[in-house]
Formats: sequence, structure tokens, C-alpha cells
Amino acid sequence: MKIGIFGYGNLGRGVEYATRAAADAELVGMFTRRDPSSVKTETGAPVFSADDILKFKDKIDVLVICGGSATDLPEQTPALAEHFSVVDSFDTHAKISEHLARCDGAARRGGNVAVISSGWDPGLFSLLRVYSSAALPEGEGYTFWGRGISQGHSDAIRRIPGVIDARQYTVPVPEALAAVRAGECPSLTTREKHRRECFVVVEDGADRAEIETAIKTMPNYFADYDTTVTFISREELLSEHGGMPHGGSVIRNGRTGEGGNTHTVEFSLRLDSNPEFTGSVLVATARAAYRMSSRGQTGAYTVLDIAPADLSPLSREELLHTML
Amino acid sequence: MKIGIFGYGNLGRGVEYATRAAADAELVGMFTRRDPSSVKTETGAPVFSADDILKFKDKIDVLVICGGSATDLPEQTPALAEHFSVVDSFDTHAKISEHLARCDGAARRGGNVAVISSGWDPGLFSLLRVYSSAALPEGEGYTFWGRGISQGHSDAIRRIPGVIDARQYTVPVPEALAAVRAGECPSLTTREKHRRECFVVVEDGADRAEIETAIKTMPNYFADYDTTVTFISREELLSEHGGMPHGGSVIRNGRTGEGGNTHTVEFSLRLDSNPEFTGSVLVATARAAYRMSSRGQTGAYTVLDIAPADLSPLSREELLHTML
Repeated sequence: MKIGIFGYGNLGRGVEYATRAAADAELVGMFTRRDPSSVKTETGAPVFSADDILKFKDKIDVLVICGGSATDLPEQTPALAEHFSVVDSFDTHAKISEHLARCDGAARRGGNVAVISSGWDPGLFSLLRVYSSAALPEGEGYTFWGRGISQGHSDAIRRIPGVIDARQYTVPVPEALAAVRAGECPSLTTREKHRRECFVVVEDGADRAEIETAIKTMPNYFADYDTTVTFISREELLSEHGGMPHGGSVIRNGRTGEGGNTHTVEFSLRLDSNPEFTGSVLVATARAAYRMSSRGQTGAYTVLDIAPADLSPLSREELLHTML
Repeated sequence: MKIGIFGYGNLGRGVEYATRAAADAELVGMFTRRDPSSVKTETGAPVFSADDILKFKDKIDVLVICGGSATDLPEQTPALAEHFSVVDSFDTHAKISEHLARCDGAARRGGNVAVISSGWDPGLFSLLRVYSSAALPEGEGYTFWGRGISQGHSDAIRRIPGVIDARQYTVPVPEALAAVRAGECPSLTTREKHRRECFVVVEDGADRAEIETAIKTMPNYFADYDTTVTFISREELLSEHGGMPHGGSVIRNGRTGEGGNTHTVEFSLRLDSNPEFTGSVLVATARAAYRMSSRGQTGAYTVLDIAPADLSPLSREELLHTML
């Protein structure tokens, strides 16, 4: 399958590496809104202007769209799904239905397949929420995120006057995680599930107390959490907090029968690089989109609609012998 | 959907409870090779003779076949798939392709859907092996089973002269599990991955040393493992080892990119009752078989062919809002 990458930031680089790691994929190139000559790719793949994308209609099987969920993907995915089979990682949970409907219309008009909201959450975590609740209908499900960097929360800190740079880690509260893993079904508030650790670089002479208060009282982002703020140097930020780790767990505790039997299902991820892992999942999703399109399917789907075998490079016989 | 249960042992009882827990399922009854009047069900569901099964052709949507993999399912599933959409938990890994092919022919002739080899392994564990290897093509996958009761190994001990009863626990070797969870990719022998704990009730005057040797040197079952044998009373066996717990973990460690980033994906189960959990997964699988059949599909499939949404009682809109 011939892959194009639309948007070339951290996630685009993750997709680039993952395409190289997939024996059945070939990378046609990156499409950027920047000046293509200013962009150097990790693997030497060519860079084209996003404006020229329609010239590649017959040269690309699946376009992996690597824009942001806030403003890029709501426009880009429906627009491109009219011309290409596409995959995206749209993660604004409240707007997924709307995005799916718009992509569905566009993909059907173009005779293409669009798979939206893939990655790990939404994505693999969504799959595990469905499997675990189907297996244990009487029970309680939990999702814990972290320990990992939240880009959105880091950005929110950077917008505070006097802040030069920041990294925010989302951290599950150990006691809550331990209770759920032990089979308990507690009712947990936002504060009881996660805490937030902030590492902040400020300008010389900045009012640290004021910045700390501005962070800790920020509505939606921090006010509902126990938040710690640590001021560090720019060098320390880069050396100690330069990566993009993430992860988390989907856990479901359920009951069956009449003898009080309980069961715990847990799916957990520990990721050194959020964008590289997400990029890798997107390439597997692109494989499924390619196969669905090759079978004549059209329209927009999520990972919940994809037969697992379609994500794998293995043949049906290989899957039966090595995976089942 | 109207469910029939073919074969009424531990697994059949698990399916019975799970059918009751499923709001969209109705239990038509059990089908047994024993005298139906001698069988009392857990939920009061009616019991019929297995010989009368064809009289129920229009009264059952999906038949859940609860026989054993050694001799029952290879005969029963293809024979019944010609008349009903069916689900089974066939778990003889080496013969799955052959079983699938036979069921496929029968199901197509009858215009039915057969989903074979569902449960947790094969089943949920198979799904997670596929997802994790699709997400991390460069890596190593591991499956650990236990701590849990292996029925086959318990039966093997019971066949030794002088043994009255026995329970065998399969136990992951803690050091191996810890190393894999820590992201290492060791090459592990059979002995390094699992050990076997046996609790054995013997006749008065039996030669315990001889029985212990017979267990520990039994080929295929115990010879390749570190095995412990503990002789206990019949009362202790029932009070301390009367349940059917099981579980395990599918773990994959993989690499992405060029910076040496590594990732760990783990799926784990801790089950109080293996047959009740397996029965619950089979009912979710029956739901998918019913929907696939309602859409006009025919033939034999495994869980790797099933879109996750088809396993869930939730509507598409509910899935998008609560699971994705």
C-alpha cells in the first residue's frame, strides 16, 4: 500500500518511521503547509506542498492525516476523504459523532474509506473498553492515563505570562489505581483519579508564586486536580523532560454467576514516545482502510468497525497458526 | 436473540448465567446427551435431549456448543453448523485451521454463521496478540498463563493409579514475568516461563513417592517443567482448591523510530471462574454471530474476523459516546 502523510510534525514523523517498519507499505511523501524546501524528513522521504495533494490522487492508496484535533482535522479529514482513503487520530471525544458523519458523507461521495479517531485513546483503549464491557456486562470500567506528558496541559502553562517553557505529566493516583487493580469498584472523583505534575521554566525575575497560583487555579486544566509545580532551568527541562512518554490502563472489574465470582480485565500501555506509538497504530489502521477500500467498502468508520485481522500484515493462515 | 446451549457442564452453566446477564438474549434451553429429567439447571431453564435439537431449527438464533475440544467439538460444531448459527470454544491450537475449514463448509451449506475458538485463549488473548503485533511490528510477544487451574493437567494426575483427586495450577515464573514486564525480551524455555503446582489426594496406603515421580516425569504434561507435588486430604482439596480460577497475560515489547524508544503493551486477566468468564465471552460472540447472520453473511469465522462493535449490546451511537 502506498502511504502519504499529510502534516509533518511529531505525529507525522511517527507515521514516517512506522511506514518504514511495515514491510507492506511504501511512503510516497509528506505534504506540508510550510515551504517544502525548508522541511528535512527523518528517512529522506520527499516533501511536497499540501496545495499539490490532488495531483497525487492516483499515486496514494491511503493518506494519513496528522493534523491537530482542534482546528486541522475537522476541516482536513472530510475535505481529503472526498479524494483519498484516509486515516486520522481525531481525539475530541465530544465531537466524534459529528466528525464521523461529515467524513462519512465525503468518503461515500468519493468512493473512499475514512477511519477516524485511531491511535491509543481513542483507539486501542476504545477497543479494550468494548471488549471488556462485552465480556463483563455487570461491572465497572476505569481508564487511567499516565504517567505521561499531556501536550494540551503543557501548552496551557506556556501561555501564562512569564513562562518560557513547561512540561505537564498526568499521573494516576497510586491508591486509586491499586484499589481498582485489586478488584474494587470505587466511585472516584476527578481529583481522586489523577494528579498533575508541572515542570516550569520562567523568565528571570518572574513572580513564581503568582505563576504557581495561576497554574493551580486554572479552570478545566488544573483546578479540579492536586497539582504540583516545580520550577527548573531550561537545561534541566531539556535533559530530564525532553521525551514524550505516555501510557495508561483500561481496567474493568465484573461479576458473573451467583457465587460472587469476580474478574479483572486490564489493558495497559507504557510508551517511551506517544507520537511514535500513535504513528505505528495509524499505519496499521491505514492497512485496514486500504483492505476495506479494496473490497469495495466506502464511508467512515472507527476502530470499533474494523475486523482485527485487517490490521495485521499476516495472512489468514499465518494469523490462525501464530496468533489464535 | 434466542440462545440454545448444547452440552451442559461447567461451561454450559457459565453460558447459562451469561445469557441471563445479557439484556438482549433469551435462553431457549439446554440440550444434553444425558436423560433430560436427570438434569437440574441453575436458572430453571428447560432441558431437552440432544437428539431433539433439529426440532428447534426455527426456535434458536445461535447455538452455543459447550463440548470438549478433544472429541466433542470436532464432530458437533460442523454437524450443527449445517442447521444453526453456532459458536464454540475449540482450543486445540494445532487443529484450528482444519476445524475452521470443516465448519466453513457446513455453515455455507446451511446458510449459517459459525464462530469457532472463542473464549479467552484462544479468544481475547488472540485478539491482543494481533493488536499488539500490528501496533509494534518490531518486537517480541509473550503469553503467560495462570495462576490458574488446568483441567487437562488435573485430569492427567487423576489417571495415575492410587490418585483419588487432584488440582493442578499453572503458575508463571515470577522472574520471567517481571523481566518481560520491565521491557526486556528474553528467550525463555518452557521451564523458564511456567511452573506447575499439584495438589493430590491419594488412597490410604498409596506409595506417595512413586506417585510424585509418576507426575514429575510425565511427558508433555510435567517433564519439561519445575513441578511441585503436595499431598492433601479430600476435605482440604474441596475447601482450598474447589474453585476454577485462571488468568494470565499477553505482553509485547516493541521498538519504534531511531532513538531507541521502546513500548510495552500488556493485557491481563484475573478470573475467579474460568468457565463463567469463558461463557460470558461466548455469549458476546453469539451476539456477533447473530448480527453477522442477520446481515446475510455465511461461513466460519474466528474472533479475528469480528468487528468489535458486533460483540457489544450497545448501539453505534452509544459506543461512540461512551466507549470511543
